[in-house]
Amino acid sequence: ARPRVGYFYSGKKPVQSVTDSMIGMKVRDFQSIPVVVAENVSVYDAICHMFLEDVGTLFVVNNSSLLTGVLSRKDLLRTSIGNTELDKIPVHVIMTRMPNITYCEKQDTLLQAAKKMIEKQIDSLPVVVGNEEGFEVVGRITKTNITAAFLSLSDDHEL
Amino acid sequence: ARPRVGYFYSGKKPVQSVTDSMIGMKVRDFQSIPVVVAENVSVYDAICHMFLEDVGTLFVVNNSSLLTGVLSRKDLLRTSIGNTELDKIPVHVIMTRMPNITYCEKQDTLLQAAKKMIEKQIDSLPVVVGNEEGFEVVGRITKTNITAAFLSLSDDHEL
Repeated sequence: ARPRVGYFYSGKKPVQSVTDSMIGMKVRDFQSIPVVVAENVSVYDAICHMFLEDVGTLFVVNNSSLLTGVLSRKDLLRTSIGNTELDKIPVHVIMTRMPNITYCEKQDTLLQAAKKMIEKQIDSLPVVVGNEEGFEVVGRITKTNITAAFLSLSDDHEL
Repeated sequence: ARPRVGYFYSGKKPVQSVTDSMIGMKVRDFQSIPVVVAENVSVYDAICHMFLEDVGTLFVVNNSSLLTGVLSRKDLLRTSIGNTELDKIPVHVIMTRMPNITYCEKQDTLLQAAKKMIEKQIDSLPVVVGNEEGFEVVGRITKTNITAAFLSLSDDHEL
């Protein structure tokens, strides 16, 4: 057996309870980069963009880069069934519009964001910064981010 | 002020740490009902089924009710762009097939299931029971279930 001489640095982080970790989780620490499209982009191009960027939700912005809509995979799939003119329909016709968009801010807790997604039955929230004219989209929180956070609790605390 | 006489029952559950709650979370306690389709169903009908059942993933089974494939919204959206003959394509042509399907079992921990979804970059896992011939699908675990579990930790512990 290896002799135990003196103390060894275990490499562990200072102890914080799982509870404190959970309460301390902020949207800003787990958010992803948002993917946005303009209002006049076609549904066809939006679908291609969604595949290229590999996201489940696109945010739609106006000429001033302010949030005006949200497009989910479900919205795009609904429109694409049996529709051969996808290149002629602009996304603003099918998107979910403000003020019906549920959003969050980067200083919100991840628990608050998770609660909104479960209550509204949506997979993603835009992270916004508001000003007098509207909301600028600065991030994206998804159930994937929440799942990753759930796992990180376990990893950080070596469960 | 109200006089404090004797002890009051607070209504709280016996204390268990958040850590213990997390480790103890099992797939069986959070899983949803699986939605399955047969292999020869058309892509068009599968999309309709997905909307009717309001799920993001369909599991495909053979005549013996054993798992042979998985269909995500992404798979169906990819096929539906610019394709006018969705009613003529059977789902077995486009589905992800065994043995390339990542699954879990009901006695697995939720942490194990979450880890698989993050590592494989998928939104859902079939919960299966294996026998000599294959896997029977008995449930479905999604990132929504994980998000709900994350919230329930906070609710149960009144964070």
